[in-house]
Amino acid sequence: MLKKIVILVCDGLGDRPIKNLGALTPLEAAKTPNLDALAKEAECGMMYTLGRCQVPGSDVAHLAIMGYSQHEYYSGRGTIEVAGIGINLRPGDVALRGNFGTVDDNQLIIDRRAGRIRVVEQLTQSLDGLEIDGVKFVVKPGTGHRAGIVMRGEGLSNAIIDADPHKPGIPIRNVTPTNNSPKAQRTAQVLNKFLEKSHEILKKHPLNEIRKKEGKYPANYLLVRGAGFYKKVPSFEERYNLSSCCIAGGGLYKGVGSFLGMKVIKVPEATGLPDTNIKAKFQSVLTCIDKYDFVFVHVKAADSLGEDGNFEGKKNFIEKLDSASKLLLNLPDDVLLIITADHSTPCELKSHSADAVPILYRGNGVRTDDVMAFNERACKKGGLGIIEGKHVIPHAQNLLGTLKLVGA
Amino acid sequence: MLKKIVILVCDGLGDRPIKNLGALTPLEAAKTPNLDALAKEAECGMMYTLGRCQVPGSDVAHLAIMGYSQHEYYSGRGTIEVAGIGINLRPGDVALRGNFGTVDDNQLIIDRRAGRIRVVEQLTQSLDGLEIDGVKFVVKPGTGHRAGIVMRGEGLSNAIIDADPHKPGIPIRNVTPTNNSPKAQRTAQVLNKFLEKSHEILKKHPLNEIRKKEGKYPANYLLVRGAGFYKKVPSFEERYNLSSCCIAGGGLYKGVGSFLGMKVIKVPEATGLPDTNIKAKFQSVLTCIDKYDFVFVHVKAADSLGEDGNFEGKKNFIEKLDSASKLLLNLPDDVLLIITADHSTPCELKSHSADAVPILYRGNGVRTDDVMAFNERACKKGGLGIIEGKHVIPHAQNLLGTLKLVGA
Repeated sequence: MLKKIVILVCDGLGDRPIKNLGALTPLEAAKTPNLDALAKEAECGMMYTLGRCQVPGSDVAHLAIMGYSQHEYYSGRGTIEVAGIGINLRPGDVALRGNFGTVDDNQLIIDRRAGRIRVVEQLTQSLDGLEIDGVKFVVKPGTGHRAGIVMRGEGLSNAIIDADPHKPGIPIRNVTPTNNSPKAQRTAQVLNKFLEKSHEILKKHPLNEIRKKEGKYPANYLLVRGAGFYKKVPSFEERYNLSSCCIAGGGLYKGVGSFLGMKVIKVPEATGLPDTNIKAKFQSVLTCIDKYDFVFVHVKAADSLGEDGNFEGKKNFIEKLDSASKLLLNLPDDVLLIITADHSTPCELKSHSADAVPILYRGNGVRTDDVMAFNERACKKGGLGIIEGKHVIPHAQNLLGTLKLVGA
Repeated sequence: MLKKIVILVCDGLGDRPIKNLGALTPLEAAKTPNLDALAKEAECGMMYTLGRCQVPGSDVAHLAIMGYSQHEYYSGRGTIEVAGIGINLRPGDVALRGNFGTVDDNQLIIDRRAGRIRVVEQLTQSLDGLEIDGVKFVVKPGTGHRAGIVMRGEGLSNAIIDADPHKPGIPIRNVTPTNNSPKAQRTAQVLNKFLEKSHEILKKHPLNEIRKKEGKYPANYLLVRGAGFYKKVPSFEERYNLSSCCIAGGGLYKGVGSFLGMKVIKVPEATGLPDTNIKAKFQSVLTCIDKYDFVFVHVKAADSLGEDGNFEGKKNFIEKLDSASKLLLNLPDDVLLIITADHSTPCELKSHSADAVPILYRGNGVRTDDVMAFNERACKKGGLGIIEGKHVIPHAQNLLGTLKLVGA
């Protein structure tokens, strides 16, 4: 009897046939004996995370897979990023994600990541707690050059366009409201004042004096984006009655876990990069599934490699993933394993696409089908047919026998 | 990298198994090596143009395939017919399609098409510009016995039942309003006056005097139907950022093109009949795809043959279509080819039906499947699964990489 769930989300795994891979996708071209062994024991299918013809951003894609509709629970990526950093939002809060970047004296962007500065805690400390026109700013360090920012005060809105032109060589813009509401106008005004004041503080910050002496880019401007506002979000456990944890390298995915109230497990060798230690992550899965009912494990690099157009790299990373997946063959008898992706990232496009992704459900008592491999072409013929992200957890609940009866 | 789109819509192509064709559909029974070759290089599936269990009319079917919901953009076929004739509607206008027909002295219908009169320009000229109770009538010739009529004035509505009994031997009725609104009542009243006045003018028209002398039916009554009203419709190019053109024989399909702001390309040998020159049309596709980003090419006769119950004729016409389709194998590398139908027209029913139609997407980088033939039975097993008309263009946009990201 199935009692627990492990879901492995391989970011950007789906792709399209690539000429140099013999008209196969990286997943089809990769040697994946372990994933294929899992597929043989599974029911397979294809998934449109947000529905057909919707190109999923990573944030809303993961929320959809976990059963949290973007329309109900999503207002901007900032909310998820600050959750990952460990800031608890309160009603009325506006949350932003930020980069420490470098601008010149004319506020032209020199580098959006201040030469990929690695530790920004001293910088965030100098900004954390600033108050402008009754709005308090909470500023905490993220990974690398990143930060999470919360605006806390009366009459705020996330209806703003950020100041980041997203390209070097272009001047910083003003934050502008996207509508005429007093809230949006106030938010833009206060945020502009904060960014100006931050720039003054950062310009003179001792850490930046040192960086300049060392010939490094000073981290003298806080670039913000992805404004979202507080919404009440029931935790994964409240929603499904399953205690849950999250194993991820990338900040956003830890953020998704935190956002949904999952325990975020630290795996030191999980980097979110192609060099990540997938085996260490899957070892952690095997440990965690003893303690939790639901383990969400995320592997990032197939997406980044797709965005680089690096199909050989993507294929190789998939083989590394497959090698680690041997561990998943040893999950306890009462565990349902789901393997899927949040979206496709075709190497040709170098960006997310709306192409469906393969999905498998493997566990005792699950109906199997004739699919013998885990890839786009094979899973199209799976017994599950074509599902959407919103079906992923309910289908698992059904397999566990925990869905509620409709009618009598 | 795909940059352009050709969509071939084969009107009424879908069918049901026919005993005399060995329990195959005309498309399954026809020898179609070229369409099958395209299917082998494609991802295939089935489509319900308006959704399951909806029998599509040709007008709303084409709008749906182009991504224009009938609920938002359709108010009556008249609007599309007059677009095809080249009349630009203005806010408040009511548009109708019309036939020149023959009635006797008691206004009994003798022939709904006045013996299929071929040129009606002199007749429309005698009616164009008439004004009744402040409503101006624009009357322009369509193809053959057809005309487009626009009522332009204050307080009009399309909530009327036409006067055409649709059968010979029955008297012309009065146009009646379908509701009690003053607008509907006024429209019916004004239109009745116009039809009466037109009849007086047409009865005495010199062209009809000549026709009577020649023993032909006089075109002495304008039968109108399909009242629609002006709606703002974004052009195909505005909507998708793709310059577009339309290659069609039938008037309605040119009308669809015009309605959506496509350039309507003249192919003199395109007749909309079984004798049409499909090769000339496909040659035109090859020329047009150099100049336009999107080419809509329509082939009509499978539908008409289905409506006649002529399964042998339908099968033969499909083989003629297949023969011309060899040209489509030579589309440039950056062109995505879509082949589908607007609806099924089963020979047994002699009318449109809600049966799904096959669809294929063929182009570089498109995920292929194991489908080896383009027909109802084969495409059911395609990787696309079952889609709806509203997905057709967005799915193509996805393949071109031009869909917008949802979330971040």
